[in-house]
Amino acid sequence: MPSISSKGLKMPESPIRKLVPFAEDAKKRGTKVFHLNIGQPDIKTPQIALDAVKNNTIETLSYARSEGSEDYRNKLVDYYKKHQINVSSNNIVVTTGGSEALLFTIGSITDPGDEIIIPEPFYANYNGFSTASGVKVVPVISKIEDNFALPKIEDFEKLITKKTKAILICNPGNPTGYLYSPEEILKLKEIVLKHDLFLIADEVYREFTYDGLQHTSVMAVEGLEQNAIIIDSVSKRYSMCGARIGCIVSKNKEFIGTAIKFAQARLSPPTYALIASEAALDTPQKYFDDVKEEYVERRNTLITELQKIDGVKVANPKGAFYCVVELPLKDSDHFAQWILEKFNHNNETVMIAPASGFYSTPGEGKNQIRMAYVLNKMDLIKSVQILKEALKEYNVE
Amino acid sequence: MPSISSKGLKMPESPIRKLVPFAEDAKKRGTKVFHLNIGQPDIKTPQIALDAVKNNTIETLSYARSEGSEDYRNKLVDYYKKHQINVSSNNIVVTTGGSEALLFTIGSITDPGDEIIIPEPFYANYNGFSTASGVKVVPVISKIEDNFALPKIEDFEKLITKKTKAILICNPGNPTGYLYSPEEILKLKEIVLKHDLFLIADEVYREFTYDGLQHTSVMAVEGLEQNAIIIDSVSKRYSMCGARIGCIVSKNKEFIGTAIKFAQARLSPPTYALIASEAALDTPQKYFDDVKEEYVERRNTLITELQKIDGVKVANPKGAFYCVVELPLKDSDHFAQWILEKFNHNNETVMIAPASGFYSTPGEGKNQIRMAYVLNKMDLIKSVQILKEALKEYNVE
Repeated sequence: MPSISSKGLKMPESPIRKLVPFAEDAKKRGTKVFHLNIGQPDIKTPQIALDAVKNNTIETLSYARSEGSEDYRNKLVDYYKKHQINVSSNNIVVTTGGSEALLFTIGSITDPGDEIIIPEPFYANYNGFSTASGVKVVPVISKIEDNFALPKIEDFEKLITKKTKAILICNPGNPTGYLYSPEEILKLKEIVLKHDLFLIADEVYREFTYDGLQHTSVMAVEGLEQNAIIIDSVSKRYSMCGARIGCIVSKNKEFIGTAIKFAQARLSPPTYALIASEAALDTPQKYFDDVKEEYVERRNTLITELQKIDGVKVANPKGAFYCVVELPLKDSDHFAQWILEKFNHNNETVMIAPASGFYSTPGEGKNQIRMAYVLNKMDLIKSVQILKEALKEYNVE
Repeated sequence: MPSISSKGLKMPESPIRKLVPFAEDAKKRGTKVFHLNIGQPDIKTPQIALDAVKNNTIETLSYARSEGSEDYRNKLVDYYKKHQINVSSNNIVVTTGGSEALLFTIGSITDPGDEIIIPEPFYANYNGFSTASGVKVVPVISKIEDNFALPKIEDFEKLITKKTKAILICNPGNPTGYLYSPEEILKLKEIVLKHDLFLIADEVYREFTYDGLQHTSVMAVEGLEQNAIIIDSVSKRYSMCGARIGCIVSKNKEFIGTAIKFAQARLSPPTYALIASEAALDTPQKYFDDVKEEYVERRNTLITELQKIDGVKVANPKGAFYCVVELPLKDSDHFAQWILEKFNHNNETVMIAPASGFYSTPGEGKNQIRMAYVLNKMDLIKSVQILKEALKEYNVE
């Protein structure tokens, strides 16, 4: 029998995936499961995007241009301008989701054995893309006590080797909800310039910033032109996770030229999704205002309710729609399964993401979970109630 | 300035890409350009697929399941059954186009430095995916004199090393149009079993077989269960190149389990395209009969017209919608540019793909081009007329 590759063997399984059968079994038993485990918002997609697809007049569903049409990229230029990011259409490569943007970026700047430094906890799939490219993720730990602020720059400095090719941040952060300050971005600027590294910023939650705070893009920082790379996506911005449209933005011409060769090899991003994404750029501001108001309420509700539980610690998120929660227990992987498999409260339970999947340092995050506040207020209150009851019962067992 | 990777530097540029500016300039000069250079058919997408998207009732465009929904995969099982391929839904991973199917397959079975043997000329992007994965393509030459039939099995045997992980075929072939016989597939079976290799078959042109010939799938061959992998796509079958939906099919559980981990890392195939693809499975047989009749006519027209030109040799295609043509000249890369840049016949010209991009052996195919018969009969006749006039003028210059 032919064997699969050692790379294939190393590919990480999604940290939530192994819980899916337990959630399915719970549902089969008639238990209602509140899903706080993934970043799939219940928010409606802008009508203008939905209508554009419904009213399309395609007769032959043809390939789109590998790097995205000139029209769409020009409209993206206008969008970025509104966010203090001045780029031209030549700085943009349209991708099949933020996922592909990451894959092309890692492929363009790393060879097998190279290293990328990432503050952890981090988005679990960074591990997947790195493994697929044979790249080593070097974590630098951020702390729940600091709300997961940027680790000290000396901590980065210590980890830089000849193999280091980039620092990768997610801003605002998944799973942390942390929003980097302009000062933190400037610190990162200094270190990447000093060591000739790329600074990759996953900014797919750009719009989701709260408490009057403003997002600082790595592309808005002067002097970072050759180093900064944005990973972007329409998934969260317009609640269009299923579109699978994202993009890479960079002023580094050699990098963009290389990313385009990866884009050519896979021919085309999905045409219907491009129609939706181009139309979504005309979404009225009110949509975003309403969405932000909704998320602020949800965040406040979730945090307030969680803080009522003895022994629970929460990092207060300033952006995105996740928070990392420390629980009074030792093994949140076990707890996340137990709460689906063995527990219910009035025939209801919750699905949460154990945080260990967001760390690459072994043993880290074992008493933490990530909660995505993608449900309405009432469901969030209920979910925390269920969590509270579960913790009581779990810690007795 | 940070540097890009040596992998990135090695990524091949699309062989047609460099001609695009010359085609654009020709159009700006008012010259009509007939596009025989890419496999983008002018055939209409089945109405049932277009309507399914137009009538969708999505309000929140959510992620689809990473490996494709149970429903869609079950319907694919029925489709395959009609083609003598007996599989279950667990043998299928839905991908973002045949491109991603290849990427996941190569990622799952190879480590950097491993080798894949491919009869050449072959689909140019096999090079791109191999380079992206750090894999070496080992070509085994097939000949225009044999219509690009399977090279002798001894030729494969000679190339097998400890690093060889798979043999990859495209059947029917792009760019050759060659359809492998059942005997040829059995020869491949023998050698992959002997050396414990995977046999990857890109069967995206399965329906496009002519002259009463039947397609033989690697999955329909007994004894190949652990070795055979199908790369598939809706792109050509339903003229839905822009959908970006494909799949991997294999009975090798370890391989499929690994491919699913790659699928999880990129989260989801595109949701709108899944709606179109699922609906397309109900396309009436008449659609395929009409399409096949059209392609047979086109092929016959193209071949007949080409054979009228002195010094031109054509491999007679039995499937797909390409043919490789040998021209009486030394450098088809130069000719393909010249015909766009310096030539027109009554203000019309043609865009063709130089065949060198389909070979990885240096110097091979320099006097060949690939023509895609994706235009109507009248345009094909005109195109060959233009080619004839161009050859006269080119060979005088």
